[in-house]
Amino acid sequence: MGPQHVTPEVADVLRACDYVVAADKGDNDGLLAARRVVAGAYGVELVAVTDPERDRSDPVDYPAAVREWHEARVAAYETVLRERGGEAAFLVWGDPSLYDSTIRIVEELATRLPLDYDVLPGISAPQLLAARHRIVLHPVGAPVHITTARRLRDDVSAGQTNLLVMLTSSLDLAGLEDWTIWWGANLGTPSEELVAGRVGEVLSELGAARARAKESAGWVMDVHLLRAPA
Amino acid sequence: MGPQHVTPEVADVLRACDYVVAADKGDNDGLLAARRVVAGAYGVELVAVTDPERDRSDPVDYPAAVREWHEARVAAYETVLRERGGEAAFLVWGDPSLYDSTIRIVEELATRLPLDYDVLPGISAPQLLAARHRIVLHPVGAPVHITTARRLRDDVSAGQTNLLVMLTSSLDLAGLEDWTIWWGANLGTPSEELVAGRVGEVLSELGAARARAKESAGWVMDVHLLRAPA
Ligand SMILES: C[S@@+](CC[C@H](N)C(=O)[O-])C[C@H]1O[C@@H](n2cnc3c(N)ncnc32)[C@H](O)[C@@H]1O
Ligand SMILES: C[S@@+](CC[C@H](N)C(=O)[O-])C[C@H]1O[C@@H](n2cnc3c(N)ncnc32)[C@H](O)[C@@H]1O
Repeated sequence: MGPQHVTPEVADVLRACDYVVAADKGDNDGLLAARRVVAGAYGVELVAVTDPERDRSDPVDYPAAVREWHEARVAAYETVLRERGGEAAFLVWGDPSLYDSTIRIVEELATRLPLDYDVLPGISAPQLLAARHRIVLHPVGAPVHITTARRLRDDVSAGQTNLLVMLTSSLDLAGLEDWTIWWGANLGTPSEELVAGRVGEVLSELGAARARAKESAGWVMDVHLLRAPA
Repeated sequence: MGPQHVTPEVADVLRACDYVVAADKGDNDGLLAARRVVAGAYGVELVAVTDPERDRSDPVDYPAAVREWHEARVAAYETVLRERGGEAAFLVWGDPSLYDSTIRIVEELATRLPLDYDVLPGISAPQLLAARHRIVLHPVGAPVHITTARRLRDDVSAGQTNLLVMLTSSLDLAGLEDWTIWWGANLGTPSEELVAGRVGEVLSELGAARARAKESAGWVMDVHLLRAPA
């Protein structure tokens, strides 16, 4: 999530490309600043692409809302690529394989422009969470269910006992007081915060840590692992 | 899985440490060779620690069998650390958070020796799989269930429809012919193989690719994503 996590193969691409594109989310522009640091470290220009407004209320048809927002983003990137041409690198936050729309954007762009592309892996938030807490994401030989805060209740009802929860704009852990949580915010950045323990015992500590991260960076993103009592 | 994936923070540790330890699994020593290349790239000695024999038959009590093997490994590492002292780096294959026992070994060592340690993330096989196939690991907003081949049947019976399957010493996909598979072997190495498609249509291609990887490297490790028809 910072220059310390840029792999040599990504570094080579950054050095060789003509410019880097990254979404400018306005309110959240700490993420953009972090990517500017990475691009700067390799002497390549970062082109910020203004992210279209997204309906943050809870739409009934979630996939449709995402699709609409996605279409507007594609149009914004298309304009930049057409104007600039050359070799562009999309700097993804974390790893492109988890809850990231960059690949879908590039696929869609490839239907509109002559375009070849590669995808390179990066260090994700769940990996940083595990490393900081010095844990493995699952009990020996058991699964880890990677899901979203929105789905957490359903997945727990369906019997999942070891869940990695992402997209956590709010944290509702009522009824899970006996579970163990490993939580982290703004991982890999100077405002990183970590909390671990029995959910019922760390809730207020968690709230305070989340507020500290937000206060310090101006933005907060957090992820957690939840495990049922044995 | 190679020097191209060693992050700058890991490179700094490799340069600064006194030696690197890595398991020598004998039959599987291609993995050791790959780690020797990484250690060599940073001018640090690699100390191979012979892995104790593991009961590869299907023990009734799987966790107990793993614990026993684990105890023998800890003893082997303890000997090396006591003899050599100094700062040791454990070079994990992929990321330490997934199906890897290094953290448990080090925790156990810390109860036997005066020992401080850090865990740093790395690029995992699932991330390389996703990058090579240029996919996200889940449908929009949906979960990805990371599991083992041993648990695959149970997890599918329990209703999972999007599974990332690891520890796949054999591949039994009977009954899943309509599902889509994204498969990869020896990812991030020169013997890498990729196959994707409807399970029923790619089974023989998969077998051939797996044999090719094994033939070319002398070992094969593979991982796949399985998704139910929409
Ligand atoms: C849109 S997803 C992108 C995830 C990203 N592709 C990755 O590999 O981590 C954003 C979510 O990831 C998690 N996340 C991303 N960056 C994080 C960070 N630095 N610290 C903690 N959580 C983070 C949060 O759950 C956040 O809601
Ligand atoms: C003991 S686990 C270790 C996983 C590792 N910690 C990681 O982050 O990928 C070994 C399993 O990971 C998968 N695996 C590891 N390396 C791989 C590679 N280079 N290509 C494909 N699969 C791999 C296989 O499923 C293998 O059975």
